[in-house]
Amino acid sequence: MRGVVTSIRLPRLSPDRVDRVRARLARELGDSKVVADAASLEANAGDESDQEPILPDVVVRAENAEDVAAALRVAAELEVPITPRAAGSGKSGGAVPVAGGIVLATIGMNRIVDIDRAEHVVVVEPGVVLGDLHRAVEAEGLFYPPDANSLAWCAIGGNVGENAAGPRALKYGATRDWLLGLDVALVGGEATFVGRRTKKGVTGYDVAALLCGSEGTLAVTTRVVLRLIPKPERVVTMMATFADVHAAGRAVMAALGSGIVPRCIELLDARTLDAVRARGVAVDEGARAMLITEVDGGEDDAMESAGRVGSRFDDAGALAVLVAQDASQRDRLWEARRQLSPATRAMARHKISEDVVVPRTKVPALLDEVDRISEAIGVSMLTYGHAGDGNLHVNFLWDDDDHEPRVEAGLDRLFRAVLTLGGTLSGEHGVGTSKAPWLRLEQGDLLVDLQRRLKAVFDPKGLLNPGKIFDESARSGTKGHRAC
Amino acid sequence: MRGVVTSIRLPRLSPDRVDRVRARLARELGDSKVVADAASLEANAGDESDQEPILPDVVVRAENAEDVAAALRVAAELEVPITPRAAGSGKSGGAVPVAGGIVLATIGMNRIVDIDRAEHVVVVEPGVVLGDLHRAVEAEGLFYPPDANSLAWCAIGGNVGENAAGPRALKYGATRDWLLGLDVALVGGEATFVGRRTKKGVTGYDVAALLCGSEGTLAVTTRVVLRLIPKPERVVTMMATFADVHAAGRAVMAALGSGIVPRCIELLDARTLDAVRARGVAVDEGARAMLITEVDGGEDDAMESAGRVGSRFDDAGALAVLVAQDASQRDRLWEARRQLSPATRAMARHKISEDVVVPRTKVPALLDEVDRISEAIGVSMLTYGHAGDGNLHVNFLWDDDDHEPRVEAGLDRLFRAVLTLGGTLSGEHGVGTSKAPWLRLEQGDLLVDLQRRLKAVFDPKGLLNPGKIFDESARSGTKGHRAC
Repeated sequence: MRGVVTSIRLPRLSPDRVDRVRARLARELGDSKVVADAASLEANAGDESDQEPILPDVVVRAENAEDVAAALRVAAELEVPITPRAAGSGKSGGAVPVAGGIVLATIGMNRIVDIDRAEHVVVVEPGVVLGDLHRAVEAEGLFYPPDANSLAWCAIGGNVGENAAGPRALKYGATRDWLLGLDVALVGGEATFVGRRTKKGVTGYDVAALLCGSEGTLAVTTRVVLRLIPKPERVVTMMATFADVHAAGRAVMAALGSGIVPRCIELLDARTLDAVRARGVAVDEGARAMLITEVDGGEDDAMESAGRVGSRFDDAGALAVLVAQDASQRDRLWEARRQLSPATRAMARHKISEDVVVPRTKVPALLDEVDRISEAIGVSMLTYGHAGDGNLHVNFLWDDDDHEPRVEAGLDRLFRAVLTLGGTLSGEHGVGTSKAPWLRLEQGDLLVDLQRRLKAVFDPKGLLNPGKIFDESARSGTKGHRAC
Repeated sequence: MRGVVTSIRLPRLSPDRVDRVRARLARELGDSKVVADAASLEANAGDESDQEPILPDVVVRAENAEDVAAALRVAAELEVPITPRAAGSGKSGGAVPVAGGIVLATIGMNRIVDIDRAEHVVVVEPGVVLGDLHRAVEAEGLFYPPDANSLAWCAIGGNVGENAAGPRALKYGATRDWLLGLDVALVGGEATFVGRRTKKGVTGYDVAALLCGSEGTLAVTTRVVLRLIPKPERVVTMMATFADVHAAGRAVMAALGSGIVPRCIELLDARTLDAVRARGVAVDEGARAMLITEVDGGEDDAMESAGRVGSRFDDAGALAVLVAQDASQRDRLWEARRQLSPATRAMARHKISEDVVVPRTKVPALLDEVDRISEAIGVSMLTYGHAGDGNLHVNFLWDDDDHEPRVEAGLDRLFRAVLTLGGTLSGEHGVGTSKAPWLRLEQGDLLVDLQRRLKAVFDPKGLLNPGKIFDESARSGTKGHRAC
């Protein structure tokens, strides 16, 4: 039985098969791209989730699409599991090679191939870091909205694989909403372009949309075509504090009812504010909830919108509403927000950060339930996240290893509450290994089995990123039996 | 060999099988929902494309999801082709029952189930007319942007099936960009919800995105969850005229480079303006191209944006730039635009209106090629459409039946030019039967075969909307051989 902080493990290759796979890859790709030293295996074993790292048997450092195709050809011919990986910054175990085998690392494919200013399109390789993409297109007056909090190190290949999003999803949506087309390689090494290079296009099924968010289980991305918009002229950042999360919840609904769509409304609950204070940020002691909100738009419009949202916050009982007066104030605010994940991780020996979504009117109800769960299981919990779209990160923090079963019980109760409230298990981190045991609870047998059959179209032998999304072996108490 | 104005025909059921199917459906659904009179069959035989209508053998008038499931169960058990249909306003033959069999009509399922003002979500049945949806949500201060020109009669079920779009797609995208979730029934009658009811959600593959635009070949929609935004406070509509399409093309690029994203930029070429003049609309005789542009936003911002776009048009050499002064001027302008399809249809005995997309910088190059094609084949052609996103409707108009082979040659040359320019075969009408012969030209064997295998996951016997998207039998000169 798998615990909450240990990944599922599938059977591994025998040592002589490992030798054959390494030798074959080296012959096809050259020694410099095929590594199996301890440091390289270690560096490609885990992600940023709570799932236990598992060493691969060999790492392919792809430098181009041909390398990716070659690795996928070898994997198919030798029937070896292969797990694609970009920055490895995922939060659900998606990049953990749970059956060992090959890790196919695309982080070295990091060219921004083309920024087309006239078409508002950018073409990038999967290893391009999100923040680098932001800077490159913004230098041309353009804007790529998705902004995962890990933007300083996460990569586009993983963003596509997980359909990553961030605070600005409230106004601008997630990666899929900006994805036009993909060059991909399939198990077996065949390659194709899916999607389009134009803004519109409905020719055939939207295979690109299917692949986006498929967590590296269907195909491996070698190039990405994304659409862009003009960079907003002005962004106004506001911070509002409240006496409790219910007041903050009312303020969120009031803001969203104002006719303005803020580009983000981020919520920090009472315990998260304690973590923020512990990092030396001055927050009024009476504040038990905070909203960080941004509006953007034209030069005048953004200010007018911010004023309107701010007055809704006041009406809803904000203790204070502060507007960042310059870029450095704004950067400090966001730096604090982006540091929440590592900051809260430092608060205890063990942390699980869950990513759930409820209808936004249900955010206070979910936070009440989180309080009840925390009390019931005797484990510290805190919550922050994207209140405007109901996507919250609920954190469990504990030191005592023996408390793991309590956490597991808390997780189960949390997910059931989310579904009862009309929500979904994941807003931006994906299912990976961490939520696979609960997938049927949300989606039912028919839809899960349908997805497994879609998976089999791309990967009939289950070689590509095995053990992800659909692997329920931990829950059923049985081990997976794949042909590897 | 199929001609350009005749649909592919697949083998039909024998008369005794037709009797059995009708009797079985009547038993399951009741006589009132199962009709086979001549008028009903005729009314469910064609769509608004140039594809020849083909009579079904029986029509099921579904009133609820259970009726849809029952029809799909009977179809699977008796191995009978079944073609879903909402308003039948499609433009690519998608709703034409090319093998006869059952037409499953969902236009009677036309309830707006819920408008959730707090969540900005609407839940509708597939038979709801798009314009009715617009009115209903706008009465609540909300906005559903997709605006197919057939909005007065097209229905949401078809919009989802074709991933329909309209002028406002430039700023707001197509149906898929607003789709959160679907209740669907599968061949065999099983039903499931796919997607989510929340704004964000990445749990499992995005099956809803895959179904949207699948042209009724994978599943049948029984309920649709769409997201909404606040209704823009102000819309400014402008009309600009130009001496030729190259000047108009430069103006489009200048406007799109202004930092503003207009919600639409519609182009009418010289021959289309002749059609407009023939409808009694006064257009300066010197004008050989027209752009109809809208910007929206906050009360002040929209006017400021319109001014900026207008001055870009002036700089690009507009003959005149007029701003609609009130709602009635605006409505008249759009009425003329929406009437283009029927107006141009009235210009000749035969009309084919193609829907193609090129990168927006290539619009003038495509229009030059259209002129060359028209001259080469001796057939009148005109073009209008969504210049801002490069999605153009290229029309062939002819009277002499013998000119059909010329038109076919012109179509082939047009599609090849579109692909050479980096475009795609369809921007909003879908492949249906009309473009199936050219699908491989754009997508290649690997991707087409992959999609056929995806289709087989949902519909292994090819019963659901057979002959669509992938049926190349006309091109290869062979007939389709399905197990029906």
